Amino acid sequence: MTIQLPLSAHDAVLAGTMLAMGEAARAASAGLAKAGPDRRTAALKAMAARIRAAEPAILTANAKDMAGGRDKGLSGAMLDRLELTPARIAAMAQGVEDVADVADPVGTVIASWTRPNGLSFERVRGPIGVIGIIYESRPNVTADAGALCVRAANAAILRGGSESLNSSRVIADALRAGLKDAGLPEDAIQLVQTADRAAVGHMLAGLNGKLDVLVPRGGKSLVARVQNEARVPVIGHLEGLCHTYIHEGADPAKAEAIIVNAKLRRVGVCGSTETMLIDTRVASALLPRLAKALEAAGCELRGDARARAIHPMKEATTQDWTTEYLAPILSVAVVDGIEGAVGHIARYGSQHTESIVTEDAAAAERFLAEVDSAIVMHNASTQFADGGEFGMGGEIGIATGRLHARGPVGAEQLTTFKYVVRGTGQIRP
Amino acid sequence: MTIQLPLSAHDAVLAGTMLAMGEAARAASAGLAKAGPDRRTAALKAMAARIRAAEPAILTANAKDMAGGRDKGLSGAMLDRLELTPARIAAMAQGVEDVADVADPVGTVIASWTRPNGLSFERVRGPIGVIGIIYESRPNVTADAGALCVRAANAAILRGGSESLNSSRVIADALRAGLKDAGLPEDAIQLVQTADRAAVGHMLAGLNGKLDVLVPRGGKSLVARVQNEARVPVIGHLEGLCHTYIHEGADPAKAEAIIVNAKLRRVGVCGSTETMLIDTRVASALLPRLAKALEAAGCELRGDARARAIHPMKEATTQDWTTEYLAPILSVAVVDGIEGAVGHIARYGSQHTESIVTEDAAAAERFLAEVDSAIVMHNASTQFADGGEFGMGGEIGIATGRLHARGPVGAEQLTTFKYVVRGTGQIRP
Repeated sequence: MTIQLPLSAHDAVLAGTMLAMGEAARAASAGLAKAGPDRRTAALKAMAARIRAAEPAILTANAKDMAGGRDKGLSGAMLDRLELTPARIAAMAQGVEDVADVADPVGTVIASWTRPNGLSFERVRGPIGVIGIIYESRPNVTADAGALCVRAANAAILRGGSESLNSSRVIADALRAGLKDAGLPEDAIQLVQTADRAAVGHMLAGLNGKLDVLVPRGGKSLVARVQNEARVPVIGHLEGLCHTYIHEGADPAKAEAIIVNAKLRRVGVCGSTETMLIDTRVASALLPRLAKALEAAGCELRGDARARAIHPMKEATTQDWTTEYLAPILSVAVVDGIEGAVGHIARYGSQHTESIVTEDAAAAERFLAEVDSAIVMHNASTQFADGGEFGMGGEIGIATGRLHARGPVGAEQLTTFKYVVRGTGQIRP
Repeated sequence: MTIQLPLSAHDAVLAGTMLAMGEAARAASAGLAKAGPDRRTAALKAMAARIRAAEPAILTANAKDMAGGRDKGLSGAMLDRLELTPARIAAMAQGVEDVADVADPVGTVIASWTRPNGLSFERVRGPIGVIGIIYESRPNVTADAGALCVRAANAAILRGGSESLNSSRVIADALRAGLKDAGLPEDAIQLVQTADRAAVGHMLAGLNGKLDVLVPRGGKSLVARVQNEARVPVIGHLEGLCHTYIHEGADPAKAEAIIVNAKLRRVGVCGSTETMLIDTRVASALLPRLAKALEAAGCELRGDARARAIHPMKEATTQDWTTEYLAPILSVAVVDGIEGAVGHIARYGSQHTESIVTEDAAAAERFLAEVDSAIVMHNASTQFADGGEFGMGGEIGIATGRLHARGPVGAEQLTTFKYVVRGTGQIRP
């Protein structure tokens, strides 16, 4: 006996709406691809102009969201991410213009070769198709993600946090108006208009084959849920547990400048260093200087036994080595050479970004080769882990997986490719 | 109240074994990566030699598998795929040597650039890590897949069909002996030694994070199961529903040679054409000639109304347009221009391989641009859809997904990359 559960009218309407969004997105992505790079650039510029023009409407909608957020008891950090100001709206529009300036990746020939039988091969970049983005209540992501998708001729289905729905609606309308201004299909950017969490379930199920990939952007629990439940491929950014390793060959002044910047420039970003590894050969000489500089800048230190024997600080527990603080706290471990540093990172890291500080080029190359992370650095702050800093004109996140995209996900990472084979009548023997 | 199900001793042993394989594979992949390209090449050559030397043992084990397969009532086609002969063993060894000759992809710099702040960026190829391959009772896949994984410094966990277990065991032992000959960790290639299907379940679950990607190689139902149930990324090859489009500008002799080869050279491969699209403007003149040539070579035709009005053939149902026959059967549709051909392919195709036959270069370019498949061809047989024919030295399958790998999956497609950033003390403003 099969028990049929009644499907409520609300559920049925939502399911129909979501599937229709998928269909519309698929059609719009084909339109974007055909339009060519210049019209996509024109659309991005029009989108930026529409955001600027919509400033009063965005501020009004955002005030409503902020009031709702306060009523709901959102934390100060969450309210800060939700809030839009004239300066933030200008930055959002500028971000869209930066994406307009990025080289259009569609149609690029990635590789070409000819075989002895005369067949010529090209591997040519093209759009992925329809990209679903699930994010928290940060309305600026609506513009960032929408713009990057359009740059690579992808249609975007955006599902932001419910607390930001009013703001995101006005922003999405501005983006759609910009697409229309340039004669491109508005449905290349669609915002899920309901706070109903079941909408996310439909996206995880892939909208009946119309969704090609999901990009979760937000906290670890959101990303983990999407990675576990999605029936479509996911480009995910799990967490940034970044390490800076002070090698025995480090220049003390560079080490101090880099660790203070890597930890404290902005503590809430994924490229912020959470653990400092310091070589046992220089720990006595260098750790006090680094620790004092960090403490003077307001940073709490938590160390292992060897670190605490050199400079007084709180004791680090095992949990500290795997905690993305996103706060002015730094864990400190004394390690034995490059092997010790690489081993600590392999055991506790999140394969995001790690940096070595040293004047010893051979040591640096060994670290860069042996650390298996999306981004490895020499004598640079881990806070450079950012698509803009990489020259990508923006990013939708830093991928910590190993397939398709790894590291900053810009427009180029939102493409696939196909093989174009040209012959003169060849048949296979 | 939580109900605890008793875990049988067998299940517990299997779970422990599979997790230990994952751990061993992870360690072995690190060893392979460190060994460098020359030692990986040496290992591949030793693996080929070990396969040749093991010919008698392989034949004995295969005779056992064949007897078991006959008792089980396997079809003729399945027994054919299971059977190994001295010639097939030699071809298998040669295949491994072909992979040894392919350029080692690890360490290749894919792109490099410098930013205005002096930071230099490189995107460098590296191994994915641990690759799980789930395939049917085709023992040669054990060697093909193992070799491609080793070429890219990946460890392989191989799970072949239970009917081929004896043959695969001897082949896997030969591969492991070859690794050992070259001083590389044997556990870079591990074969699941049980026919218990629960082993597949453990692989789908990802072996506690030790498995980076799954590659299912086999029939549509196997691939669909893996794609639906895997908790790790999948590089899948769903089916090859390939089209050859005879454009109005086709050279008749080329059209005949290409369609006969594309359909009939080997009907059981994924690059075999399943549907011929013929332009309405040349159908009356050309279809009879093509149909007669195909029929003379033993091919059954199933056509739409317009095709049947020109040449007598069976009626094609809607199901024919979506059937991968893997048999000497060809469906035939008359279409209206390139738009009609592209539309038919978009509606019914599997995004694998499609070819246009025409002397009209502009028409060809339009088809190549508008058809959204892994491989698009002009004046060539779809049977060239093969990693070897692409110059990749072999393939583990043809990926029909859009992310990471698309088209033939060779050693290069079994890699990821990382960003190497070199600075001189830069901190982020």
